[in-house]
Amino acid sequence: MAKLAKHYLLGVDLGGTKILTGVFDAKLRLRGTAKVSTKASRGVKAVVERVARCVHDALDECDLSLAQVRAIGVGAPGAVDTRTGRVLFAPNLPDWKNIPLKRALEKLLAVPVFLGNDGNVCALGVYEREFKGRPNHLLGVFIGTGIGGGLVLNGELYCGHNLTAGEIGHMVIAVNGPKCGCGNRGCYEALASRTAVFRRIQMAVKGGQKTLLTGLLGPDLRNLRSSHLRKAIRRGDKFVQKVIEETANYAGIGIANLINILNPDVVVVGGGLIEQLGDEMMPTLVRSAKEHVLPGTLRGIQIVASKLGDHAGITGAAVLARRMSGQHPHADHPPRRH
Amino acid sequence: MAKLAKHYLLGVDLGGTKILTGVFDAKLRLRGTAKVSTKASRGVKAVVERVARCVHDALDECDLSLAQVRAIGVGAPGAVDTRTGRVLFAPNLPDWKNIPLKRALEKLLAVPVFLGNDGNVCALGVYEREFKGRPNHLLGVFIGTGIGGGLVLNGELYCGHNLTAGEIGHMVIAVNGPKCGCGNRGCYEALASRTAVFRRIQMAVKGGQKTLLTGLLGPDLRNLRSSHLRKAIRRGDKFVQKVIEETANYAGIGIANLINILNPDVVVVGGGLIEQLGDEMMPTLVRSAKEHVLPGTLRGIQIVASKLGDHAGITGAAVLARRMSGQHPHADHPPRRH
Repeated sequence: MAKLAKHYLLGVDLGGTKILTGVFDAKLRLRGTAKVSTKASRGVKAVVERVARCVHDALDECDLSLAQVRAIGVGAPGAVDTRTGRVLFAPNLPDWKNIPLKRALEKLLAVPVFLGNDGNVCALGVYEREFKGRPNHLLGVFIGTGIGGGLVLNGELYCGHNLTAGEIGHMVIAVNGPKCGCGNRGCYEALASRTAVFRRIQMAVKGGQKTLLTGLLGPDLRNLRSSHLRKAIRRGDKFVQKVIEETANYAGIGIANLINILNPDVVVVGGGLIEQLGDEMMPTLVRSAKEHVLPGTLRGIQIVASKLGDHAGITGAAVLARRMSGQHPHADHPPRRH
Repeated sequence: MAKLAKHYLLGVDLGGTKILTGVFDAKLRLRGTAKVSTKASRGVKAVVERVARCVHDALDECDLSLAQVRAIGVGAPGAVDTRTGRVLFAPNLPDWKNIPLKRALEKLLAVPVFLGNDGNVCALGVYEREFKGRPNHLLGVFIGTGIGGGLVLNGELYCGHNLTAGEIGHMVIAVNGPKCGCGNRGCYEALASRTAVFRRIQMAVKGGQKTLLTGLLGPDLRNLRSSHLRKAIRRGDKFVQKVIEETANYAGIGIANLINILNPDVVVVGGGLIEQLGDEMMPTLVRSAKEHVLPGTLRGIQIVASKLGDHAGITGAAVLARRMSGQHPHADHPPRRH
């Protein structure tokens, strides 16, 4: 077994609320996972230690050890300098300013660590795992609390000048539209994210709108989650259905914009909201995208929901680890078709 | 002189109203130009013959002949299949559906012809001539009757799946905004093009707005052109100034979207409206772009007006000819810096 000693890849999805880790073999098959809450309020050092612990936990889950890990990939939110392995700033991780995460984790784990932005890393995971690295150009759109994106162009992650490419959530699609967390108005994520859905529902309920949700959660809709929306729709709540369709329509407009600009082979839609409400949202989303692209530009382009769900982040992080540690990305796949 | 026999490059800018041709030497220095009206209404064959005549005219202008031309590049409007050299469709050239322009011109001129979309070709011209091929990623935004775009990513034209990437003019920035020629509402070019400016001015004048323009052109503003707007502003017309600033603000929002998505090293703004009103528009455009990008993503990115003006198209077409005919693109430039 000596030659398999460094066979495994570890993917880390570092989020504002939870840390998810996964152990993958060289063919990107998932062997085991672990999850802990992030506890960002305890400070940077505590979070880094929790990541390391979650790495150990996932390995323990599948009876492996760090000595068998070739490399660790980490998808982190916000602006990430992939060259230095630093998190420059992360809106959902207070105190995270210019944090040398790569170095800190390498010190704790003694395995090479590679860092990427979470949207980019998810797109890479979907590209390699779901699409076997075959499309030339893939765009990932991840709809959750916000909207993240990732671009794989000519088979490579495209990051741009400041390595911040793919910030599709802050593309303005409605000048003078609703306020966004970034300070501007009418951003894509202010119209088509889970946050936008919740805001619309809460405002309507305050205005007297009836919905099954208040029966499930009480009048203040405390602890509202995407799964409640799905439940309400399946029980026939027309109001929630309408809000979700409106959101899917906006989601499609943003995707049409991106197709007009980038004309990728594949648009993959994922993230928490799609994982819970993909069946409800995708038909409207695809129709809206088709209505808003320039005629003739959509021919042969796939718009599909990702099947990786919550595992896109850890999978992509493992792909990043594989690519950056020098293993040939398509060693186990047929060559890309052109 | 034998070794210089195939030294020259010819650039053709085929537009809906005019055909412009330019003869360039191997260092992309412009030696001579010619211009004829397109006369699209006379049909495809007549237009192709006019292109060929305009090529001859430019060569004659600088005492050269077709025998000294290495290759001809053509920038054409609409959807262009660069692989087959066909114009698939062109909104501003009626009857142009699946026209084998490359083959038709090669038959008439007996020189290799290479075809590209006009926005892409302009971006390529600006990239090579103004920026000496140095940036990694350049985005061209060309504001005229509509808004065209071109992406140079990793030093190469990026065209996407259907070769229609860069259709930035139809990115929706104002859901439910003004009607666009494409049938949708709130497209970038419905808010920030010359057409949008003229529409705003004409509607306001119909509503009783006073402006120096009616003194220049009569109450129906027949034959309104960008140069009249500049004249009116320089004579103190606050109304026209306000319309232009509003337009520049929208132009900046679209550019912010593109920076959030692509994070290029350079954004070059050109086209007829900028050529005439660059001084009036650029400060507002740049401020608006800065206000609308995600904080931190603009560091080190240039947003500048192109100096090539009306020559961007022929220059880019010559660059295309040079690249496609196998001459090394940077033979006469220092290597690109990373």
